[in-house]
Amino acid sequence: MNLDKSSTLALDVHGGDHGPKVTVPAAVDALAESPGLRIILVGRPDEIEPLLAGVDAGLRDRLVIEATSEVITSDARPRAILRAGPEFSLYRALQLVHEGRAQSCVSAGNTVALMALGVKLLGVLPGVSRPALMSQFPNAAGTVGMLDLGANLNVDARQLAQFAFMGAEVRRAAHPERPASVGLLNVGHEDGKGHAVVREAHELLKASDLDYRGFIEGHDIFEGTVDLAVCDGFAGNLVLKSSEGLAAMLFGEFRKTLESTWRSRLGALLAKPALKAMVERLDPAKHNGAPLLGLNGVLVKSHGRSGRLATTQAILEAGQEAQHHVPDRIEAVIKKHERETAS
Amino acid sequence: MNLDKSSTLALDVHGGDHGPKVTVPAAVDALAESPGLRIILVGRPDEIEPLLAGVDAGLRDRLVIEATSEVITSDARPRAILRAGPEFSLYRALQLVHEGRAQSCVSAGNTVALMALGVKLLGVLPGVSRPALMSQFPNAAGTVGMLDLGANLNVDARQLAQFAFMGAEVRRAAHPERPASVGLLNVGHEDGKGHAVVREAHELLKASDLDYRGFIEGHDIFEGTVDLAVCDGFAGNLVLKSSEGLAAMLFGEFRKTLESTWRSRLGALLAKPALKAMVERLDPAKHNGAPLLGLNGVLVKSHGRSGRLATTQAILEAGQEAQHHVPDRIEAVIKKHERETAS
Repeated sequence: MNLDKSSTLALDVHGGDHGPKVTVPAAVDALAESPGLRIILVGRPDEIEPLLAGVDAGLRDRLVIEATSEVITSDARPRAILRAGPEFSLYRALQLVHEGRAQSCVSAGNTVALMALGVKLLGVLPGVSRPALMSQFPNAAGTVGMLDLGANLNVDARQLAQFAFMGAEVRRAAHPERPASVGLLNVGHEDGKGHAVVREAHELLKASDLDYRGFIEGHDIFEGTVDLAVCDGFAGNLVLKSSEGLAAMLFGEFRKTLESTWRSRLGALLAKPALKAMVERLDPAKHNGAPLLGLNGVLVKSHGRSGRLATTQAILEAGQEAQHHVPDRIEAVIKKHERETAS
Repeated sequence: MNLDKSSTLALDVHGGDHGPKVTVPAAVDALAESPGLRIILVGRPDEIEPLLAGVDAGLRDRLVIEATSEVITSDARPRAILRAGPEFSLYRALQLVHEGRAQSCVSAGNTVALMALGVKLLGVLPGVSRPALMSQFPNAAGTVGMLDLGANLNVDARQLAQFAFMGAEVRRAAHPERPASVGLLNVGHEDGKGHAVVREAHELLKASDLDYRGFIEGHDIFEGTVDLAVCDGFAGNLVLKSSEGLAAMLFGEFRKTLESTWRSRLGALLAKPALKAMVERLDPAKHNGAPLLGLNGVLVKSHGRSGRLATTQAILEAGQEAQHHVPDRIEAVIKKHERETAS
């Protein structure tokens, strides 16, 4: 696989809850980690420039500011989003990818805006029925990829199968040593379980050349049964957000418990180095960066609440996908599967 | 509300992974906790009787064995389930409820079998479109009820609204001090989010007299935003099982981490009393017992992997629902809402 050694990324500095004060330092961190990367900071220069004051000259040279004045808010309605023009940071960032001035784009803006403007400005790859949002979760085996996470609420069997092809290709680009094992989320493991759409997608995937392991259940996501879990965007979004909520609750309870008595406080002090390593391993920030697959360009969504570490992670993820030519690979794999289905 | 002081429960001793060696001692524990309860142990006498050898005579008097010879296995196909007769423990247990010899039934058998035989032997309450499976999860506010958890993979708006009416009534029976607050699970909080079915159900619930709080997202389940979370059975089942898997993974990681170094082992020893209290509070076994709502009789599903404590909990839950006349209450509340919709 031909890897580009350098690529340029367009960063929407205003998306998300924290804006430039988090996204700009995160961009600097990403440059330090990824020597071939250049970043175009898209947003309001008066908010960006003060944040670049103390930055090392070698890193500063790999940063350019692209001035825009407007921001798409997180609660913007679809109609307002579609009226947005190049004065909006997300719009302009995507336009830079379309113009070839950047090879990837990162934004923590709202998913509807990313999807709508991604489709409008980058376009959908030939043969792709519907773009999908993918993410990675830490699990017992390391990480598991999952899609769709909310871009598509109603899907048909062919679309579910395409999600599997696209997601498996992303996993393979990152882990070329072996094909990704794929499972289709359902309410039971046995053939014949579930509604008509998953049963039909099951047959399409069985007939494909994917390393398809059949139906999986919710618990399989975290048990490490497969590398990639596929479902519709409604169920996927509920699983994603309920998992975030549950993990936050359990970590919160654990923290409260360790602070509740003098014995437990002392115990926590002793266990701290070990606990810290665990929390770091499972930290969702380390797995931030959800690509919108099926677009003619790399577009990665960063979580709205992302801090500096999480934002850096999303930038590095997007940079890698551009280096691996993920859109070209997806185009090829979809073309191949569509040909097989037609024949 | 008129509460029965005594009731009889039919227990399918063979359902689930462990069978009589867990369900029979659990039944004895439930009798000790609930003085008004009597239990009919439905199953193979040669497997049940040895387990009753040392049981206190006062408790033994409140136990009866109903002899059956056959067991519906956890992987039984729907066709085989519907051919089952009174020689099967689950079938006979449900028949006892239908005959009025018991007021409730507990089984850890597979959900499809409980649903199919529950509908066949108990019948569906008038006005109820589809029975639904409900459960309780521990969360930041105490517990949250959730349905449907897999009985209905495709639902329409009216069915989702009925799930809300039924689930709210169960919460109210257990917590009569205030009406249950209800949320409809969706991919966003705002009006207009989600697919047509949830948007239509949202309007039905807004027009109802429920304490309806609108759309909620996955994380709200664990943040304690509402008392009851409503969704279709496909998404609900994925959320339920992924949450089980995530919780098991996180507790496993905590345990491994605390055992990893001598410092953390010492720390864990000191923190043990506090950690034990936390684990007990969040223990899913304490919240075992998922009623199938909408049937003309109380039928509670126990988790297939339930141990003794969890099984006791499911029995107590079923006993309480019988004492609270939950089926009568659901019939009344559905009748009222159907009348309102028609007028």
